[in-house]
Amino acid sequence: MKWVEASDSLCPVAQTSAIVGDRWTLLILREAFLGAVSFDTFQARIGLSPHLLSVRLKRLVAEGILKRREGVRGSYHFTASGRALLPVILSLAKWGNDWRGGKVHHTEHVHTACGHIFEPVLACSECREPIGLDVQTTLSNKLTRERTRREAHNSRRKSS
Amino acid sequence: MKWVEASDSLCPVAQTSAIVGDRWTLLILREAFLGAVSFDTFQARIGLSPHLLSVRLKRLVAEGILKRREGVRGSYHFTASGRALLPVILSLAKWGNDWRGGKVHHTEHVHTACGHIFEPVLACSECREPIGLDVQTTLSNKLTRERTRREAHNSRRKSS
Repeated sequence: MKWVEASDSLCPVAQTSAIVGDRWTLLILREAFLGAVSFDTFQARIGLSPHLLSVRLKRLVAEGILKRREGVRGSYHFTASGRALLPVILSLAKWGNDWRGGKVHHTEHVHTACGHIFEPVLACSECREPIGLDVQTTLSNKLTRERTRREAHNSRRKSS
Repeated sequence: MKWVEASDSLCPVAQTSAIVGDRWTLLILREAFLGAVSFDTFQARIGLSPHLLSVRLKRLVAEGILKRREGVRGSYHFTASGRALLPVILSLAKWGNDWRGGKVHHTEHVHTACGHIFEPVLACSECREPIGLDVQTTLSNKLTRERTRREAHNSRRKSS
């Protein structure tokens, strides 16, 4: 499978990963949530080469995640769909704090609505309880067919 | 900044992104959550070349996210830290469904504890309310110093 096919998948994980499944892109989004807007600020904070940073910012603009405002080098601001990536970044932060951070958490989040330092918890929209591994995923018929075709194709390719 | 430095960062987003910030790795994790365990199943479902798949599985084992059980080609199973990545994958799926999926959601999740089809909602551990953008992030002094040093280094490099 070439990557271009993966973003064509009906699978929402594949669609999102095709855009943000890149360590540098995730750091760009992190900095945007921390308030970076100018090209130079992203560049200084992340240390990615101007070319590689530019490619990624352009992609995020093309995908409608950031919008560019004109200026000397332009500034980059979240759209609504970009802001909706906050749970992805907070989930990455939580895993890092829980499994890589040792005793000290180097990021702390305050929920301004209630005023408390909090941990992001993935909860069920229906019963509001935290979700552990008690999740069953079902795929649409169309996605199931796509997966069956892909699997058959890859298996054939391997044995030929 | 070379990538090896980013995973050395104290930032939990950088630490997690250094491991899972790769589109193929995210698809491997997706398949593991959907029940894949054998090398051949991962290979057929994702279509990544055996070599590239092998590199990624080894990395996930080295990072303690999957553990390998012996067998013809081995099988791969989540550790506790691997299972703790479910919020990352569900957040990617939700964004894809919300912003790329059109009217039809191709994945649906049932919360087995309450029996309902649900949306994953990022909630506050303290007040239990969903979190919007009402989050203020503070960084530890150590992480702030690391970021200041990095930014000064990158700015110097740029102007020299």
